[in-house]
Formats: sequence, structure tokens, C-alpha cells
Amino acid sequence: MYCQSCREEYGEEEAGTCKECYEEASETEEELHREIDHLKSLLSFLRLEPPSSHITSTASAGLLLLHSAASDHATGSIADSSGVLAHRAVLVSRSPVFKAMLENEMEESRSGVIRIPDASAKVLRSFIDYLYTAETPLDEDIAPDLLILAEKYQVNHLKVFCETYMTSRVNHENAIACYAFAHQHNAKQLMEAAFSLIIENMASLRDREEYKELVERDPRLVVEIYEGYLSRQANLAGTKDSSVKKI
Amino acid sequence: MYCQSCREEYGEEEAGTCKECYEEASETEEELHREIDHLKSLLSFLRLEPPSSHITSTASAGLLLLHSAASDHATGSIADSSGVLAHRAVLVSRSPVFKAMLENEMEESRSGVIRIPDASAKVLRSFIDYLYTAETPLDEDIAPDLLILAEKYQVNHLKVFCETYMTSRVNHENAIACYAFAHQHNAKQLMEAAFSLIIENMASLRDREEYKELVERDPRLVVEIYEGYLSRQANLAGTKDSSVKKI
Repeated sequence: MYCQSCREEYGEEEAGTCKECYEEASETEEELHREIDHLKSLLSFLRLEPPSSHITSTASAGLLLLHSAASDHATGSIADSSGVLAHRAVLVSRSPVFKAMLENEMEESRSGVIRIPDASAKVLRSFIDYLYTAETPLDEDIAPDLLILAEKYQVNHLKVFCETYMTSRVNHENAIACYAFAHQHNAKQLMEAAFSLIIENMASLRDREEYKELVERDPRLVVEIYEGYLSRQANLAGTKDSSVKKI
Repeated sequence: MYCQSCREEYGEEEAGTCKECYEEASETEEELHREIDHLKSLLSFLRLEPPSSHITSTASAGLLLLHSAASDHATGSIADSSGVLAHRAVLVSRSPVFKAMLENEMEESRSGVIRIPDASAKVLRSFIDYLYTAETPLDEDIAPDLLILAEKYQVNHLKVFCETYMTSRVNHENAIACYAFAHQHNAKQLMEAAFSLIIENMASLRDREEYKELVERDPRLVVEIYEGYLSRQANLAGTKDSSVKKI
């Protein structure tokens, strides 16, 4: 008999589904695709345009100025190159930290200026882009800084977004740095990916520059790597033992 | 052989897919479900809370007051029972009509008050709910009013949302009214659904109260119904003829 999907002949042992179930599955798939299209169009409907920095009056538009601590001369009325404008309503809705800050008549709420220390204007702009649109282009420089900001302001969606990107970019070169970063910022998915790569190369671990730095900076983390390595070895040995016993 | 999906036995003629294609299709379905979950979580991230009517100062929050023309006493500073507050940024982003109105320094932009004639406070609230969240509960009273508002302010997503709801509620009782409404507001899907029901009952059409009203109010539309009916009959006759010829 012939498979309706790949059109190739198959025998009784390779049988998958009957015709009825095959047709039903095709319909389900079409329905799911339609739902995806619908959800995507709703998403594009809900996305907002972040406010332009050419706006001259922030107060009347319900806007606040976020700026990096690097420059001290910003006064809050107009966004300069180190500042980014954002609507109060959007900040409050996306981040529990901004919500607490702006709804409790703190200094930021009165002045209309929020200082974001240690973030460059570029990272700040990406951060605001994401709050308005749920997307922003990432690269290897921006992703870790953005993850830190997302963690600080509890924008969990953005943190996962950055972590997923970083996880896809872990390699033997950056595994130790990624592991340390992930540990510091509680990024489990990234930590596991980095750990897997590190223990693949345990023999050469001690020769690496980043390893030596990590021993200096955070020896406890290095201990954790060894402990994880040993316990995985013990697990593997256990599996081998039991398979030997089976034979 | 047995179907992997329904677990029932089937013969060679009922064969659907081979095992490999069946497994692939299951994986695809799982992936699609994961994508749907992801899109839904992005949607809930982007949804905003519409502004509360307890806010006392609209200007500093970037808010405008929309109110129905029914009451004349609203002054724009605080939303009363007939008014609804909305952020300028949200209105501009969702509706090209509000965009033109608010970005071109028209009266509404200066005063911060937008009059929405012929809309009840309830409909206005639903309208704003949808602009913030891409959802709002519908019933048979609110759906047509909301569709009219969506059409007027060119919020196409909302118009489709209302039209889909109304189409699901067309029946023999309301078909003529729905047809007239759909014609007036250029709602093609609804018009077709209503038309199909009307021509199912052409024999009793002339006895219906709504029919007599429509003849009074918009005789040209009644002519269109007859023309559509006749051309469908001609099509059916054509199909019959050709099937007769085939025999």
C-alpha cells in the first residue's frame, strides 16, 4: 500500500495511520496554522510605536525619560543621545519594578526621570523597544547586557528572550564565561548548555585562560563544575554497570 | 494492520500514512502547539490595562477623554459615567482616524476631548477595551454598534471581530435585518451568510414584517436580493442541464 503523505510504498509493519486519521490530522494542522496566523495578526495589532525622541514636552504626553547614569547633564525635559523616552503606562504594565516605582510617588514619579545605571543608551533603546513590541534585534554584545536589565526590572519575557539567544550561541570558546554569567544571573537553560560543553573538554579545561581567571574570581563556581562533572561520571558508570549486569 | 492513532484495524484500501510520516506529523503538531503557546504568552505580555476612570489629571498622564455626545456637561478633566479615558499613544497606534486627528493639531488634540457621537458609554468602553487588549466580550446588542464604531475609526481588526461574531448568530429570524446591516457597513462575510439564509426561504419572504420594512426603506436592496436569487437559480439550472447532457 502507499503512504498518502510521502507517496512511497510500505509494508504492514511500517503502517502508521488509517486514511480517516490521516485526513483528520491534516485538517488539524491547517487549523493550527490558521490560529498561528490569527495570533500573529493580533500581535502586530497590539504592538506600539515607541515614542520618538523628537518630542519636546514629556509631561503632557505621559512620558518619562530613562537615561543611563553615564551622563549627568540630562534634566528630564527632552531626551538627548543618552536618554530614551517611554510612556508611564507601558513601563507600569511590563515591569513590576517600574510599577512599584511609579505608583508609589517615589522621586522618579515626581521628576519624570528614571536613572538606569550601568546601561548604555543602545541597550536602553533595545530594552524600550522590547517593552513596546515584544521583539528587538540581538547580537552577542547586547544580549547579556539586556538580560541583566531584564532581570533587574523583572521583565521575565525579555530575560527568556535573551537567554534563548545566548544559549544558541554557546561554544567551546565562550562556555566558561557563559557558565559564570548564567550562574550570576540565574539563567538555568544557558547554564546547562554551557556546562555540557565544558565537561566535554575537561582534559583541556585547566589550560584555558578563562578557567584561570574564574579560579581567581570565583573558586566556588569552579568547585561546582568539578562536582557536576564527577556526579555525571558516577551516573554514567552506574548506567554502564547496570547494562553489564543485564548482559 | 493497526492505525497508530485510533488503534483500530484497517485494510489495505483504508491505508493513510506510513509510520515515519505519522511520527513526523505528530512532531509537527507538537511544534505548532508550542508556537501557539509562545504567541499567546507574547500577546498577554503586550496587552495593556486601560486607564482607570479614577485618574484626576488627564493631561499629565498623556490621556484623552472620549465621550458620547449624549451628555454635554463633560469638560475633559475627569471621566464621568459617559466618558472613557484612553492614552493618546494607544489611540494613534490603533486607528488611522485618531492618528490624523491627534497628530494634526486639531481641536481634539488641543482640548484633550474627543466626542464620539451616537455611541453609548458601554459601547465606548468596549471599544477602548479592544484597543488595549485585542479582546472584549460581545453580545447581540453590542456587536453591531461596535462594528459601526470600528468602521468609522478604521480599526479593521475590531470590525472583523464583530463581523465574525454576528455571522455566527445569523438565523432565519434576523437574516433580512443582518443583510441590510451588512450591506450598509460593507461586511461581506455577514452579507453572504444572511443572503444564503434568505434565499432558503424565498417562498415565505414576502410575508415577513422585516421584508415589508426593507421595501419601504431601501427597495434597491430588495431588488438585489431578487437578482441574486435569480442568478443562483440560473446557475443551478445550468449545472442541472450540463449533468443531464452528460447522461
